Amino acid sequence: MANIKNVAIRAGVSVTTVSRVLNSRGYISKETRRKVEEAMAELNYSPNQIARALQKSQSHILGMIVPDLNHPFFSELIKHVEMSATEKQYKILICNSLDQSEKEANYISMLSENRVDGIIMCSHTLDVEAYKKLHLPIVTFDRIISNQFPYVASDNFRGGEIATEHLIAAGCKRLLHISGPLNLDLLANRRADAFKLICLKHNLPYTIIEGLNSNLTFEYFTDFIENEVAGSLSNFDGVFCSNDIVAYALYLYATENGIKVPEQLKIIGYDFHSFTRMLKTPQLTTIAQPIKRLGKVLSSTIIDMIENKDQDTINNTVVDVELMKGQTT
Amino acid sequence: MANIKNVAIRAGVSVTTVSRVLNSRGYISKETRRKVEEAMAELNYSPNQIARALQKSQSHILGMIVPDLNHPFFSELIKHVEMSATEKQYKILICNSLDQSEKEANYISMLSENRVDGIIMCSHTLDVEAYKKLHLPIVTFDRIISNQFPYVASDNFRGGEIATEHLIAAGCKRLLHISGPLNLDLLANRRADAFKLICLKHNLPYTIIEGLNSNLTFEYFTDFIENEVAGSLSNFDGVFCSNDIVAYALYLYATENGIKVPEQLKIIGYDFHSFTRMLKTPQLTTIAQPIKRLGKVLSSTIIDMIENKDQDTINNTVVDVELMKGQTT
Repeated sequence: MANIKNVAIRAGVSVTTVSRVLNSRGYISKETRRKVEEAMAELNYSPNQIARALQKSQSHILGMIVPDLNHPFFSELIKHVEMSATEKQYKILICNSLDQSEKEANYISMLSENRVDGIIMCSHTLDVEAYKKLHLPIVTFDRIISNQFPYVASDNFRGGEIATEHLIAAGCKRLLHISGPLNLDLLANRRADAFKLICLKHNLPYTIIEGLNSNLTFEYFTDFIENEVAGSLSNFDGVFCSNDIVAYALYLYATENGIKVPEQLKIIGYDFHSFTRMLKTPQLTTIAQPIKRLGKVLSSTIIDMIENKDQDTINNTVVDVELMKGQTT
Repeated sequence: MANIKNVAIRAGVSVTTVSRVLNSRGYISKETRRKVEEAMAELNYSPNQIARALQKSQSHILGMIVPDLNHPFFSELIKHVEMSATEKQYKILICNSLDQSEKEANYISMLSENRVDGIIMCSHTLDVEAYKKLHLPIVTFDRIISNQFPYVASDNFRGGEIATEHLIAAGCKRLLHISGPLNLDLLANRRADAFKLICLKHNLPYTIIEGLNSNLTFEYFTDFIENEVAGSLSNFDGVFCSNDIVAYALYLYATENGIKVPEQLKIIGYDFHSFTRMLKTPQLTTIAQPIKRLGKVLSSTIIDMIENKDQDTINNTVVDVELMKGQTT
């Protein structure tokens, strides 16, 4: 395989000149650049990025840790992070933590050993200490782990407000919120905070049932509805679910048990990812997170941190959410 | 940050000995290994994988090119490839080609420049020449691009047989198959081959309508049904769809237009990915591809090729499929 010396000889220039062309550094005349590029093309020369990464201490690889990459929300988020990062010549190393702290710790050391330039952390694990110890740019999704690391989130509080106000405007008087685990310091908990405050404002009774985030599958949510929610479901006429999959599982449970949706029970979800967009039987009422925008901002935030190392400012980004009226309210 | 010399000094051994421990090469006594490992732990030493990759010409990174990583089939496939590769210390660089040849060509040169150890190719593009030029282990999914590269596929012919026989056994006499683009040399075309042969065997008329694969979204399939299928739908009493998303789009079109499923029209899909597993309204009848197993085999095939470089044998793998009886037949 051709190396940089072969290219220099073929182009009739020095190795330093070829290196300058490769790295777009220093002054190079148009003519010289043309000669070098021709020589590279003729020799089918492919610059060894690993060698350049070592030299420049930059790999142009971002690590992205998600709880489950087959979950429609995260697969869509990864897609948009990847598309946006590719435009800036960054690649994505994918890590599927399954929210297991041990698996995540292995990933973190693996990413660090591979000298990724930065990490996008979208996991829900309790253990954030391992991240704080890394000497790497990190951006988190929907989570504040330290004031050193910026976060990107959708406006969870506003989403909770809109969802609860929508149920109340539709006539609901006995409200339930099915949330994720509130013991984790996730920004998604603001949805539950807003739910409480809006119910208090309207002098309405409210209940919150906490789920687990360690398993985001439909099977888990179906069991969860049967075991944790079914017994008290007749007490409620409106349910705000913290994600669309649990909302659909609740819809199925209700209709299979003779409860008419939306006449007797109104259901609103959260996310509006590809599963919800495809589902038409029924179309769920839900709060749409702008997943494409979240992916773009995660990508641009981490790349800005990598490329402007001396910047001290931490830019958190909160993007807006939107009500999607469907057939379940 | 600690380097290998610091570790050697702390452990009271030579740099060569530390290197042997890191690479599991040559004889090392238990006691020496313990001393080196303790020194590494005390110094928080993280071996620089990039430097080791250069030295060993191995990055332990696999490139994986998919048409759309948000598609439920591919996000599930990636998940299982990743989980399986991680067990063998390989990481996955994700490339989302959107089936655009130009985007894919950029990815291929990027992967080659980053010295990935191998590529898992799951795209549908026409252009396979770029892959053949690479001096890299490649495994393809559902596609034969050359007898130098092994492929992994589910038994598409068998899937087509089972689906068509199922429709005929349920009483269908006028059959339609909605397929992907048959001009591409994809193994999925065997589903259409089997459909034809089974109809011929039973002396039944049949029609095939070809779709495009460049866009796998629900919106595309909804438009496709309205523009390409709706006009002639009344001619058929059984439809074998080449994927579950088009099957669901067809179900929605039929029910919205007063055609009763399964009484007047029977529909069978293909894939049984996470979307189909979650969908209960209705539960689609479909052919299940064993996605977990496909992911595992893709991962083990490419890693075997990388680690046993002198092996000449090409091992193609075809895994079995299964009928999942739902409510649409």
